[in-house]
Amino acid sequence: MSENTGRPVVADLDAAALTTLHATLLDEYAALQARGLRLDITRGKPSPEQLDLAQPLLGLPGEDDFRAADGTDTRNYGGLAGLPELRAIYADLLGIPVEQLLASGTSSLTVMFDVLAYAFLFGRDGSPQPWGREEKVRWICPVPGYDRHFAMLEHLGIEMVTVDQTPDGPDVEAIARLVADDPTIKGLWLVPTYSNPGGETTSAEVAARLAAMPAAAPDFTVLWDNAYAVHHLTDDESKAVDVLGLAAASGHPDRFVVFASTSKVTFAGAGVAFLAGSPSTVAWYLRHLAFGSIGPDKVNHLRHVRFLRDADGVRAHMHRHREILEPKFGAVLDTLDARLGGTGTATWNTPRGGYFVSLDVVDGTARRVVELAREAGIALTPAGASFPYGHDPRDRNIRIAPTFPPVDEIRVAIDGLATCVLLAAVEQRLS
Amino acid sequence: MSENTGRPVVADLDAAALTTLHATLLDEYAALQARGLRLDITRGKPSPEQLDLAQPLLGLPGEDDFRAADGTDTRNYGGLAGLPELRAIYADLLGIPVEQLLASGTSSLTVMFDVLAYAFLFGRDGSPQPWGREEKVRWICPVPGYDRHFAMLEHLGIEMVTVDQTPDGPDVEAIARLVADDPTIKGLWLVPTYSNPGGETTSAEVAARLAAMPAAAPDFTVLWDNAYAVHHLTDDESKAVDVLGLAAASGHPDRFVVFASTSKVTFAGAGVAFLAGSPSTVAWYLRHLAFGSIGPDKVNHLRHVRFLRDADGVRAHMHRHREILEPKFGAVLDTLDARLGGTGTATWNTPRGGYFVSLDVVDGTARRVVELAREAGIALTPAGASFPYGHDPRDRNIRIAPTFPPVDEIRVAIDGLATCVLLAAVEQRLS
Repeated sequence: MSENTGRPVVADLDAAALTTLHATLLDEYAALQARGLRLDITRGKPSPEQLDLAQPLLGLPGEDDFRAADGTDTRNYGGLAGLPELRAIYADLLGIPVEQLLASGTSSLTVMFDVLAYAFLFGRDGSPQPWGREEKVRWICPVPGYDRHFAMLEHLGIEMVTVDQTPDGPDVEAIARLVADDPTIKGLWLVPTYSNPGGETTSAEVAARLAAMPAAAPDFTVLWDNAYAVHHLTDDESKAVDVLGLAAASGHPDRFVVFASTSKVTFAGAGVAFLAGSPSTVAWYLRHLAFGSIGPDKVNHLRHVRFLRDADGVRAHMHRHREILEPKFGAVLDTLDARLGGTGTATWNTPRGGYFVSLDVVDGTARRVVELAREAGIALTPAGASFPYGHDPRDRNIRIAPTFPPVDEIRVAIDGLATCVLLAAVEQRLS
Repeated sequence: MSENTGRPVVADLDAAALTTLHATLLDEYAALQARGLRLDITRGKPSPEQLDLAQPLLGLPGEDDFRAADGTDTRNYGGLAGLPELRAIYADLLGIPVEQLLASGTSSLTVMFDVLAYAFLFGRDGSPQPWGREEKVRWICPVPGYDRHFAMLEHLGIEMVTVDQTPDGPDVEAIARLVADDPTIKGLWLVPTYSNPGGETTSAEVAARLAAMPAAAPDFTVLWDNAYAVHHLTDDESKAVDVLGLAAASGHPDRFVVFASTSKVTFAGAGVAFLAGSPSTVAWYLRHLAFGSIGPDKVNHLRHVRFLRDADGVRAHMHRHREILEPKFGAVLDTLDARLGGTGTATWNTPRGGYFVSLDVVDGTARRVVELAREAGIALTPAGASFPYGHDPRDRNIRIAPTFPPVDEIRVAIDGLATCVLLAAVEQRLS
């Protein structure tokens, strides 16, 4: 028995107790299946109520409103860097000089793809040659991490090397060793604030080390995907680290390319993405962008300026998101605790922000848990999704995305998931 | 003297008459400079009055309107192919099955860049290897043509080979010879309807030949940039040629990739771009797109559906554009005729649609004309811009973009331009 919960520690059970528990769990699982659930906790999508918070955007800027502060007609071509007054809002939020921050189209994923595409087609400043001409390009991936990052790298033929995420961010000692001597290692991808899926925030110390460490590749690049920069769930809010300042001070001004977006602030599919970097990185990006764009959607930029107003407007808006999301995350954490606490079959994080809870089940059972859940009508992100090539070496990590479904569905889904976690753990001990 | 106009044919003048005319033109040019003009006829931008036609878009879809016809919440992620009801409108206009036509972001230039980037990074279906791995990639460019096409090809390191534009489209005999034996020739870029700058429409016969001709490169690709598909200036409207049908019937289903956009229908900077192709080309595009996008701006798609309604709605809207543009093109043509008709110093086209008038001056004088105009405060597109590498071998072509300025400014600018054309022609004869 666990001292704290009175529930059995599965690893401590003898054969008879295991068999009894197995039978109980099979009954529980059969009952779960009999409910005919159709629940989905797979993707980090905002819920309709969150999208409703930005409902005025649908009527903005309004029929007579199309002039930017400097008189620009936002309806026409031009303005490759994006609307200055919108850039100013995010420059303020992220602590970046406005000249070094651009507003783009609707998706930061697209901007990140473009940055990698430009590096492959043309090279970064300082690249010996375009990356597409290199024999091999390798990349450091902290794990668990964001599946779309890994999928893009794999699609580009980049070989992924993993390091562990720690509570302070990626294992910077391991990174420093990898980049020091190997010029094929061209980069690193990070979600620095409330990471996907583990919720860790990269500390100022780790960021400073990333900025300062020597790298064999002259064009070593950190893609700083600050997707959840303002997406707090508690009063203990992570602050933006000034990585561009750190990098400049360390003599590696072009090392970081910073990304953010309003996808999970306003509309997931119709927001605005941002790119920031050193003055020369911004110039590099614009130089290549100019061949494939005459400018981003400035009307959507203006629409966002009218709605968000300023950095405090964004902060106030994000507080309303928090009010919607806190009960959902609470439902996940409460249910996990009630069902799995003290059983020794799972650990999980308590996120202070972002969009996910990262659940580690008994080693070697994550795939089985996801399979059991699927067969009970509970869709989970595939096991291994948070690892390069979909391969979780310990087969233990499951990403829970609680933002989209209603609270009652989350409770049911996580309760069902807990049954699957326990059942898989017992099955493993019996096998 | 010209029989028709009573104006002198410059080439026929003797030395004394030339000297007299030169003095007269120098006076005229001095008077032009003295006016201190600041006129710009450089870029194919819609005018504010044209943008005003789409003013309701600024308040659409409206605060309570975000559901697509199939119930999709347009505000959220997803829907990589674009909103079906918007795709249906352009499928109707272009005569393409809706399954083969996608709605994308705001810029067809961006979609075209992405298609080339995917070809370079990953190859097209049937490519022996990604284009970026080829020793040499060559491309056929009908001239004069669109400067942004040429600039993008040059930036990608593609070697450009020119063929002439004819009144029926590009010189297809020359193209067929070039592609027959040379596998390094990977493609051809065309503005098939009311081309930039010459206004020619590629005939059904030329299109059929392009579809049917054998090509040494298995992945030979025609980028069919139908930017002005519905941009008529007369009742003699060019019809869309069914190139995808022709290509499929000729056994080269994947040869064409078709592009269009609402940039010059609704808002130049906030419209919607479209891509179409064979089912396998569309699948190829989506397969790569999926790594850098979770879906386009579906709210902007819905906004356009609400405003344009259907294909007839687009046609009616384009008629309102025509009412604005006809007097502007008329001012160009009338002024050119009044000042240069019968002088033997220039020829030009009478466009039935599109955004440009293409002016050919005396061989070897286009750069001088542009220089003279600039020094008189009239900004023209740089001479040579309509040719690869900015090199017009006969130094004679000047692109006139009359859509943006008001009619009275156009008259003044073209009148001044005519003085420069005549002065440059006389200078050349005297030199």
